[in-house]
Amino acid sequence: MSDAELVFTKGHGTENDFVLVPDLHGSIDLDQTAVRFLADRRVGIGADGVIRVVPTQAAADPAVRAQAGAARWFMDYRNADGSPAETCGNGIRVFAAYLRRQHLESADEFAIATRAGTRTVRVDGDGYATNLGPWRLPHEDRLRSQGYDTLVAVPGLDPLPALSVDIGNPHAAVALPEHIDLTSLDLTRAPELAPAAPRGANVELAQPLAPGHLQMRVHERGVGETRSCGTGAAAAAIAMMMWSEAPHEHGNWRVDVPGGTLAVRVLPRREVELGGPAVLVADGTVRLPRS
Amino acid sequence: MSDAELVFTKGHGTENDFVLVPDLHGSIDLDQTAVRFLADRRVGIGADGVIRVVPTQAAADPAVRAQAGAARWFMDYRNADGSPAETCGNGIRVFAAYLRRQHLESADEFAIATRAGTRTVRVDGDGYATNLGPWRLPHEDRLRSQGYDTLVAVPGLDPLPALSVDIGNPHAAVALPEHIDLTSLDLTRAPELAPAAPRGANVELAQPLAPGHLQMRVHERGVGETRSCGTGAAAAAIAMMMWSEAPHEHGNWRVDVPGGTLAVRVLPRREVELGGPAVLVADGTVRLPRS
Repeated sequence: MSDAELVFTKGHGTENDFVLVPDLHGSIDLDQTAVRFLADRRVGIGADGVIRVVPTQAAADPAVRAQAGAARWFMDYRNADGSPAETCGNGIRVFAAYLRRQHLESADEFAIATRAGTRTVRVDGDGYATNLGPWRLPHEDRLRSQGYDTLVAVPGLDPLPALSVDIGNPHAAVALPEHIDLTSLDLTRAPELAPAAPRGANVELAQPLAPGHLQMRVHERGVGETRSCGTGAAAAAIAMMMWSEAPHEHGNWRVDVPGGTLAVRVLPRREVELGGPAVLVADGTVRLPRS
Repeated sequence: MSDAELVFTKGHGTENDFVLVPDLHGSIDLDQTAVRFLADRRVGIGADGVIRVVPTQAAADPAVRAQAGAARWFMDYRNADGSPAETCGNGIRVFAAYLRRQHLESADEFAIATRAGTRTVRVDGDGYATNLGPWRLPHEDRLRSQGYDTLVAVPGLDPLPALSVDIGNPHAAVALPEHIDLTSLDLTRAPELAPAAPRGANVELAQPLAPGHLQMRVHERGVGETRSCGTGAAAAAIAMMMWSEAPHEHGNWRVDVPGGTLAVRVLPRREVELGGPAVLVADGTVRLPRS
């Protein structure tokens, strides 16, 4: 791609931010160099991820087309390093807000195709809510026998018991004792897990504030601390429910992350839904450098 | 400022990046909240600084209007925290590139008004060059008596001798011994100066590569390590000249910074000129949040 201009929109959901590139005819080859440029915060536009907005029928991957069902639009999500990703809980809300603003979707509830399968998104107050799909406890046996399955070491603290939760991606959620100041934790390095997670894990440090209300910070594998992680918020809520005096498997949670507030609805049959804001900040054109 | 849209351009010079806001009629009140929003890399557009493009006659500050001379445009520069700043060596090139692209200036050399006074900018190859104004050695007596005036402590290294250079703002330039790997230095914390600089200082860690050619990294006071610092490049070149076997006070330098390459021309009578690239990356409109 050389010396081309692209139309873009910048948006964020709880400060997890994205550059959206409309490709309404499926004709843009967004190669790794272009994605890295768009995501570069100093040289390009800057974002955690880049999302191409493309008709489902124009998706290059036949698996996406085959699974799409009623989804008219495919969220072609790339990480800032240019690699393709399955989906993104905060990104899907921003994608939904874009489709509605551009009149590409007009219903209050519609389907979106992702590499992880089709997701239903619905208008939820000022924001959007989406089903994150099924969750599971990969070491449920250890939870039952010892009340946790992993120990998490954060600098300056004794190892903390954690619960592994899988929501498409792996998490280790810690219930931080009340006397520890969440804001003072050192998350500049990845917390260490024992036993280690084979694929790595996002680590959530969560504190209950009231029934159905928690605050947390998150360290994302391969990234570092982030302002928000949608699946991480869900993992923290699920862990809190498992550890409550009367463990239960559904309920509504307000989860405060550094970038804002998310609504986690843990549903029967181990499904979970995430609601939250989606903001479209800016629109423009960007010049890709000559390659 | 509430719920307004602003037109913007994003650009950078050696990866020091800026949001430019054209205000051709001097009617935009860019308050601190708006500047912080525009500079926020996740919630807004993201930049090291925000520059309002305003006619000199419309500058609010009578001192700017009085000093402007032939300068038709005032570079109203704000730091990312919203505070006004005097000027910015990398920013002035991006400002000049914007004026030329928008046909607000058409000559190859023209004047720009800044809070630090009027600067002359000229087309210089693919980029622009600007006089940074006079420089001085605030502790020249100590340079003469002991060859340096400050010791700089960088984690993992013995204290290194440094030369203080003032180019409108204070610098401490270190000539790093050849056997030390510049890329391996820990600049996550501010290097410590002895004696301490009363107003703080930007610290340049510079290594000569060839006659008239050096590479450096910079830690900016109140900011941290940055990809480039125009006045810092000048300070490093000046220090190298003072420390050479035959100390001299003018000469041309190529200075490699992490964000690219700058040209420093140290001129007679202790003036210095900075040349380098200016890239206009994107143009668009941004929605300011309701305040």
